[in-house]
Amino acid sequence: MAESWSFLDTPEPNFRPLVVIELAKGTNEETIKWLTKRIVDKKANGGAQLLVKPVVMENGDENIYLVGASHLRLLLGAETVGLVKECHDNSMRTFTYSSRKTFKDFADDNHNFLTTAECQYIIKHELENLRAKDEKMIPGYPQAKLYPGKSIVRRLLTSGILVQIFPLHDREELKKLSHSWYGQVKVRYQPLDEIRCYFGETVALYFGFLEYFTFALIPMAVIGIPYYVFAWEDYDKYVMFATFNLLWSTVILEVWKRICAVVTYHWGTLLMKRQFEEPRPGFHGVLGVNPITGREEPVYSSIKRQIRIYLVSLPFVCLCLYFSLYVMMIYFDLEQWALDYHEENETNFSSLMLFVPSIIYAVVIEIMNRIYRYAAEFLTSWENHRLESSYQNHLILKVLVFNFLNCFASLFYIAFVLFDMKLLRQSLATLLITSQILNQFAESLLPYWLQKRHNKRMKKRMSSLKTDMDLSLVEQVNLEKEMGTYFGTFDDYLELFLQFGYVSLFSCVYPLAAVFAVLNNVTEMYSDALKMCRVYKRPFAEPTANIGVWQLAFETMSVISVVTNCILIGMSPQVNALFPESKMNLVLTVALVEHFLLAIKFIMAFVIPDKPREIQIKLDKLEFESLEALKQQVRATDMYNNER
Amino acid sequence: MAESWSFLDTPEPNFRPLVVIELAKGTNEETIKWLTKRIVDKKANGGAQLLVKPVVMENGDENIYLVGASHLRLLLGAETVGLVKECHDNSMRTFTYSSRKTFKDFADDNHNFLTTAECQYIIKHELENLRAKDEKMIPGYPQAKLYPGKSIVRRLLTSGILVQIFPLHDREELKKLSHSWYGQVKVRYQPLDEIRCYFGETVALYFGFLEYFTFALIPMAVIGIPYYVFAWEDYDKYVMFATFNLLWSTVILEVWKRICAVVTYHWGTLLMKRQFEEPRPGFHGVLGVNPITGREEPVYSSIKRQIRIYLVSLPFVCLCLYFSLYVMMIYFDLEQWALDYHEENETNFSSLMLFVPSIIYAVVIEIMNRIYRYAAEFLTSWENHRLESSYQNHLILKVLVFNFLNCFASLFYIAFVLFDMKLLRQSLATLLITSQILNQFAESLLPYWLQKRHNKRMKKRMSSLKTDMDLSLVEQVNLEKEMGTYFGTFDDYLELFLQFGYVSLFSCVYPLAAVFAVLNNVTEMYSDALKMCRVYKRPFAEPTANIGVWQLAFETMSVISVVTNCILIGMSPQVNALFPESKMNLVLTVALVEHFLLAIKFIMAFVIPDKPREIQIKLDKLEFESLEALKQQVRATDMYNNER
Repeated sequence: MAESWSFLDTPEPNFRPLVVIELAKGTNEETIKWLTKRIVDKKANGGAQLLVKPVVMENGDENIYLVGASHLRLLLGAETVGLVKECHDNSMRTFTYSSRKTFKDFADDNHNFLTTAECQYIIKHELENLRAKDEKMIPGYPQAKLYPGKSIVRRLLTSGILVQIFPLHDREELKKLSHSWYGQVKVRYQPLDEIRCYFGETVALYFGFLEYFTFALIPMAVIGIPYYVFAWEDYDKYVMFATFNLLWSTVILEVWKRICAVVTYHWGTLLMKRQFEEPRPGFHGVLGVNPITGREEPVYSSIKRQIRIYLVSLPFVCLCLYFSLYVMMIYFDLEQWALDYHEENETNFSSLMLFVPSIIYAVVIEIMNRIYRYAAEFLTSWENHRLESSYQNHLILKVLVFNFLNCFASLFYIAFVLFDMKLLRQSLATLLITSQILNQFAESLLPYWLQKRHNKRMKKRMSSLKTDMDLSLVEQVNLEKEMGTYFGTFDDYLELFLQFGYVSLFSCVYPLAAVFAVLNNVTEMYSDALKMCRVYKRPFAEPTANIGVWQLAFETMSVISVVTNCILIGMSPQVNALFPESKMNLVLTVALVEHFLLAIKFIMAFVIPDKPREIQIKLDKLEFESLEALKQQVRATDMYNNER
Repeated sequence: MAESWSFLDTPEPNFRPLVVIELAKGTNEETIKWLTKRIVDKKANGGAQLLVKPVVMENGDENIYLVGASHLRLLLGAETVGLVKECHDNSMRTFTYSSRKTFKDFADDNHNFLTTAECQYIIKHELENLRAKDEKMIPGYPQAKLYPGKSIVRRLLTSGILVQIFPLHDREELKKLSHSWYGQVKVRYQPLDEIRCYFGETVALYFGFLEYFTFALIPMAVIGIPYYVFAWEDYDKYVMFATFNLLWSTVILEVWKRICAVVTYHWGTLLMKRQFEEPRPGFHGVLGVNPITGREEPVYSSIKRQIRIYLVSLPFVCLCLYFSLYVMMIYFDLEQWALDYHEENETNFSSLMLFVPSIIYAVVIEIMNRIYRYAAEFLTSWENHRLESSYQNHLILKVLVFNFLNCFASLFYIAFVLFDMKLLRQSLATLLITSQILNQFAESLLPYWLQKRHNKRMKKRMSSLKTDMDLSLVEQVNLEKEMGTYFGTFDDYLELFLQFGYVSLFSCVYPLAAVFAVLNNVTEMYSDALKMCRVYKRPFAEPTANIGVWQLAFETMSVISVVTNCILIGMSPQVNALFPESKMNLVLTVALVEHFLLAIKFIMAFVIPDKPREIQIKLDKLEFESLEALKQQVRATDMYNNER
C-alpha cells in the first residue's frame, strides 16, 4: 500500500502536503483503503477529490497520511466554504470560480492567491464533509455505526480510529513570520495580516485585541504613575482617575468593535456567510429527523437539555461558588490565627507561619480551579449540546463565573467587609504580579523548553534512520505530531479578562495596576507569539468576524467596575469628611453618581456606532447591489411575461 | 381629456380603482398628460404600467385620478416589493411570479390572492419608483427641477403639484371588518389577520400590542384590587406587589418579542427583506454621488448633521426640559400660595382659588406640549436626515423625552422631594384618569362626530349633481379626500407608553393604576377601531416585523421603574421601622436590592430567546435551504469544470 492513491486519478506533478492524518496504529487495512478511496474519489462519487500520500515511518509503520489538493480543487473549495476576497475595484466579494478573473492577485499560475491557512481550512472542511452514503458502519469496524449523511471523519475520531488531523507548518513561511513577529528587537506593530495568513482569523484577532488593549491601557498607566511617584492620597484626584477609567473602559470597548469591523472587513470574514453548523463530535441521541435539514441524524430533546442545565449544572456551579467562598473564609480565619499566634509568641517559626495560610490558599485555589475546569467540561459535555458554538458558550460562562469569584472574592471581602484599603492595595498588587509571572512561565517558557528538549531527542533518533521519502518531511511530520495541541484562544482571553478585572475593578485604590498590565502584555505578546510558532502544532484557521462572547464579558466587567469604584470612593475617609453630619447623604450621593455613570455608559454604548461609516457604506453598497441584481432579474421576468 | 389612458395600452374589462391621486386645481395640462403617460407606460419605457382613470367632479374639475392595475401587473409588483406568502407546504417564502403555483390560495382566477392593502402598497411602491430619466424639470413647471433617478411623485409632492395620494376604502370589506371588529357586543379577540389584510402590518401590530398589553396588565390589576378593597397598608404586601410588577414587566416585554415574531412570521413580514430606502421627500443637499448606489442625488455631509444635532437640537431639548421643570416649580409655588391664601381668609372665593393653579398648569402643559411638538418636528426636519426612518427615530426620541418629563416630573417631585405619598397617590390617580378620558374624547369621539356632520353635508351636495360616472364612486372619492390623514401609530404608542409609566413607575403606591389602565385599554380598542374605520382616510399598508423603537422605550421605562419602586419602598415608614437604628443600613439594603433586581432583569432578558423555537427552526430551515441551493450551484460548476 505504498502507492499514493492520489496519482491514480489526478496527476499532479507538485504534491504539496498541507494536512496530516494520523490513524491509530494497526488500523484495519480495509478501513484505510476505504477512507483513502473516499478522500481521493471524485465529487460526483461522493468523494472529496483530494490528494493523499502515505508517510513511511522509521519502524515501517504506515499509519500517517499527508493530504493535499490540486490548485483547481482548492479554488473550487474556496467557493464552497464561501471565502471573501478583494476585487480589482478594492471591494470585498465572495469568491466564485467563474468570476475568478475579477479578483485581485488572481492569476492562473499564482498559487499564492489562497494563503496556506486558507488551503488547510478548505481541506479540513472538505474532509469533515465526507459523508456516509449507504454504509451502515465503518468497514472493518462493525461497532462504529454510520447513518446516511453522518460525517465520516467525525465518526472515525469519536471511535478512536483516527487519532488526529492537523495542518503542517510551512517552514519557509514560519521563518518569515517569526522574524517579523518577534525576531527583531525594534519596536513595531504586530504583523496582524501575516499572522492571519498563517494562523487564521481567530488567532490573529486575539493578537489584535491584545495589542489594542495594551495601547488602550497606556493612558491609564501614564495617568496612574504620578499617583505612585508623588504618593497622592487626595481623593478628589482618585475620583478623577476612577471616573476617567470608567468612561475610558466604555470607550475602548466600543472603539474595539469598530476596529474589529475594519480589520475583519479587509480579511473578508465580516462578509462571510455563516456556514450551517454540523452537530459536534460528542453529540449523541436517538436517530430522528432534524426539523431544519430534514435529514436523519441523532436528535436530543431540548427540554431534557434545559433540565440538565437548570437542575444539575446551575445548582452545581452555585455549590462550587459557595464552596470557593467557604474556603476563602477559612483562609481569612487561618490568616487571623497566624497573626495572633505570631503576636503571642514572636519567634522565627511564628513569622514563618505567617506565610503558611497564603501558600495553602494559593495551592488550594489552583487545585480548585483545575478540578472545577474538569467538572465544567464534563458537565457541559453531559448537557449534550448539538453545536460546538453552544457548547463553547456554556463552558465559557461556567469557567468565567468561577474564575471571577476565585480571583476577586478575597479582594471584594477585603474591600467591602474588612474595609481595609491598605490590605486591598497590597493583595491586589501581590495577586496581579504573581499571577502574571506564573502565567508567563507556565504558559510559554516551560512548554518551550520541554519542546526544545524533545525536538533534540527526536532529531537524534531520526538521523539514524533511512527512508526513501524526503527525510526532512518525515522528520517534520514526526516532530509536529508529538507537539502539544493549541486548544484555542480561550485561556489567552481569560487571562486578559482577569487582568482587565484587576485594572478596572479597584482602579481607584491601585492606579499602578495599569502599569503592570502594560508591562505584562508587552512580554505576553512575545511569549504568546513564541508559543504559537514554536511550541504547539499549527492550529486550523478559524474564520471569525469578532471576539464573540468575550466582548460581552469585558462589557459586563466594566459595568461591575462602575459599581465597585463608586462604593470604594464613597468609603474613602476623604469623601466621608465631606459629609460630616449625615452618612445618609453620602450614600445617597454615591448611589446617584453611580446611576448617573451607568446611564452615561449605556448611552455612550448606544450612540457610538458599532461600525465605522466607511465600512457601513461598503456593506450598504453590497446590499444595495444584491437588491438591484434581484430587481434586474424581476424586470427580466417582467418583460418576458409582457412579450408572451 | 376624459378618456382613460389605461385603456389605450392594456385592455382590462374590470377596472378596480385602488389609489386616488389628487393634483392641485388648475394644474398645467401638459403636466397631467406627462404624468399619466408615465404611469400607464410600459416598464420597458420607464413607466409604471398601471391603469389610470380621471374622475369628473361636480364642478367639472378634473384634477382627481384613480389608479388601478391588472391582475398580472400586481403579481409582478408583489415580486418586486418582495412579498412573502404561504406555500402549499405551510412554509413562508418570497413570492416570485415563476413559482406562483407553489403558493397556497393561488389560482389564476383568484383575484384575492393579494389583499387590497397589499395591492395598494404595490401601487404606491410603483408610483414612488417612477423615476426621472433625462428630464431636467417637470414639464409645465420649469421651477420644479429633476435629476436622473429622482422619484417623480416625490418631486411633485414637494412642489405642491400633487396634493395627495391615498388608497381608497373598500366599502364591502370595511363593512365586514368593522362588523367583526367592533360591531358585535360579544367579547372576543380582535380580528388581527383581518385588520392586517385591510390596514397593513404596522396598524395591525399596534392593535396586537394594545390587546396583548391589556391582557398582560390583567394580573397586575387583579392583584391590585384587594389592596384597594381591604385598604392594605402593610408594606411587606406592597413590596411583594412591586417585586412582582418589576419581574412581570420584564417578562411581558420579552414574551411580546416572541409573540411578535410568531405573528409577523405568519404575515410574512419577518422574512421580508428590507427594501433599499430612498431619501425622504424633505431631504435636500448639493447634487453629488451617493457612495452606496453610485447614483447622482443630493448629498448632505454627515458631520454637518451631527453638528446640528449635538450643538443645536440637543441644547434646545435640554433648555425645553429645564423650562418645563421651571414651570413645574412655579406651579408648586402657586399651589402653596393658594393653600396659604385659603387658610388665611377662608371664603368661597379662596376655595375656588385652590383649583386655579392646577387648571393653569394643565393648560400650560398642553400649550408647551404642542409648541414643543412643533419645534421638535421643525428641528428634526432641519437636521436634514436622509432617510425617513432616521427622521422618525430622532423625532420620536425628542418627543418621548419631553413627554416623559412633562407627565412624570411633578410626580417625581412629589415623591422624592416632598416625600408626600398621599399627595402622590392622589396626583397619580387624577393625572391617569383625566388624561385617559381627555385622550379618548379628543382622539376618536370628537373627530368621529365632526366627520359624521361633514359627511351629511357632502351627501346633500352630491345628490343634487349628475355625472356620467358611477355616482357612488365619485361620492366616495369626494368624501374620502376630505377625511383627516392618519399620521401613523406614533400618538397611539405614545399614549400606551405614558400609561405604562403610570402603571409601573409608582406601582407600589397605587396598585389600582393597572385596573384603570385595563379599563381604558378596552374602550381604547373600540375607539381606535372606530377611528381607523370611520374617521380617517385609509392609510397605506406599511410592512413591519416589530414595533421598532417602542420596544426599547418600554424596556427603558421598565428599568427606570425598578429604580423608582425601590426608592419608594425604602422611603415607606413601615420599611423605615425595620431599621430603627441606622438609616445607612436601610439605604444600603435598598441599593443592594435594586442592583439585584436590575441584574435579574438583564439576565432574564438575556436568557429568554427572542424567537420561539418553532419559528427559529423555520427560519433556520430557510437559511439552510438557501445554503444548500448555493452548494448545489457550486457543485454544478464543479462538475462542469471537471468535465472540461
